[in-house]
Amino acid sequence: MSNPPTSRTRVRRRPERGDYDRATIDAIVDEAHYCHVGVVHEGVPVVLPTIHWRLGDQLYVHGSAVNAVLKTAVGTPTICVTITLLDGLVLARSAFHHSMNYRSVVVFGPATLVEDREEKLTAFAALMESVVSGRGGDCRPPSDSELEATALVRVPLNEASAKIRGGPVADDASDMTLPHWAGVVPVKTVLGEPLAAAEMPSGTEVPAYLRAWVDSHK
Amino acid sequence: MSNPPTSRTRVRRRPERGDYDRATIDAIVDEAHYCHVGVVHEGVPVVLPTIHWRLGDQLYVHGSAVNAVLKTAVGTPTICVTITLLDGLVLARSAFHHSMNYRSVVVFGPATLVEDREEKLTAFAALMESVVSGRGGDCRPPSDSELEATALVRVPLNEASAKIRGGPVADDASDMTLPHWAGVVPVKTVLGEPLAAAEMPSGTEVPAYLRAWVDSHK
Repeated sequence: MSNPPTSRTRVRRRPERGDYDRATIDAIVDEAHYCHVGVVHEGVPVVLPTIHWRLGDQLYVHGSAVNAVLKTAVGTPTICVTITLLDGLVLARSAFHHSMNYRSVVVFGPATLVEDREEKLTAFAALMESVVSGRGGDCRPPSDSELEATALVRVPLNEASAKIRGGPVADDASDMTLPHWAGVVPVKTVLGEPLAAAEMPSGTEVPAYLRAWVDSHK
Repeated sequence: MSNPPTSRTRVRRRPERGDYDRATIDAIVDEAHYCHVGVVHEGVPVVLPTIHWRLGDQLYVHGSAVNAVLKTAVGTPTICVTITLLDGLVLARSAFHHSMNYRSVVVFGPATLVEDREEKLTAFAALMESVVSGRGGDCRPPSDSELEATALVRVPLNEASAKIRGGPVADDASDMTLPHWAGVVPVKTVLGEPLAAAEMPSGTEVPAYLRAWVDSHK
């Protein structure tokens, strides 16, 4: 499945880096721990980081029910959600061709406040799983008052595009004999050893699902 | 030195997490590899990732001279630049108190196109150093035509604030006896072993400045 590019999602600079395939877009969305949400508030752009997660064709973000950015988001026709994964520093022989390897997704769409209790419960359960696979079974689910205190917002993924730069450095032919080191320095986001809360009984082991998650993000 | 909070930079949600100290703001700006730039284009928010760097009180971003977002940025009174560092996944006993440890900076300001040749040369030299300390001395500086092909944009850092969540999990007292693992999983962005370009003579060693940079980002 592919999202046909719109005037807003078509990649203009370096169009060869654009990718409109939903599987590509979904993989970037799912790998990232957080996104940046952009709204227009009184004519001014406001960009804030927040956790996101995906269920099928919908991207979710959440926050306090009194969160000003979420309130602005649901009151305007279009918000922008951008997700970026940094993969490498590209060191070229020329300053000019230095670059970064990255995978990014830009989503434009309306932000809808989710008020249905069942959708909220399903979405928050999915959020737990997106933070740490298996976590949904190892925490207390939200109470009614916690559900009410939390605003859940959904944005469809049908107007989204990915932009990807990968691979090696791309220097000009005339620079290839310069005596400068050229190549790529990989960048990775990794999880460290879990630190149990001070109140946890000493000797408490890290649960198996969490150990597996940390090991798969090293 | 501290930036007095404005109506736009004052941290409203969880004000105890707000920090207006310039040293705190600068440290977050300097540690991050990239930012998200938000502009308003035809009434719609557009948020794109890009490399940023700092020289004193100025934040710089750059791109192609025909870059649409930079053109929009310099044609509007205010842009928003947001920088986020993720430090940890906070796993609480309740779903509700799950969180993330992070350090973020939000900057509002006018975007000014830099056309002075000396400022451009100085800024691009600083960019090289911000990507890898020592890199400025190991690449070909930009030519006149490369300088012309690159738009440099500056945003002052005087309307900026930081927001920081650190430390342990914060569960409700009534949840403390629940049998769920609680704690923090550290998140780190690290550099990997440099991969030399295929055309580099085999046996080329990683330069000392680059080895030191990678070792200090492990």
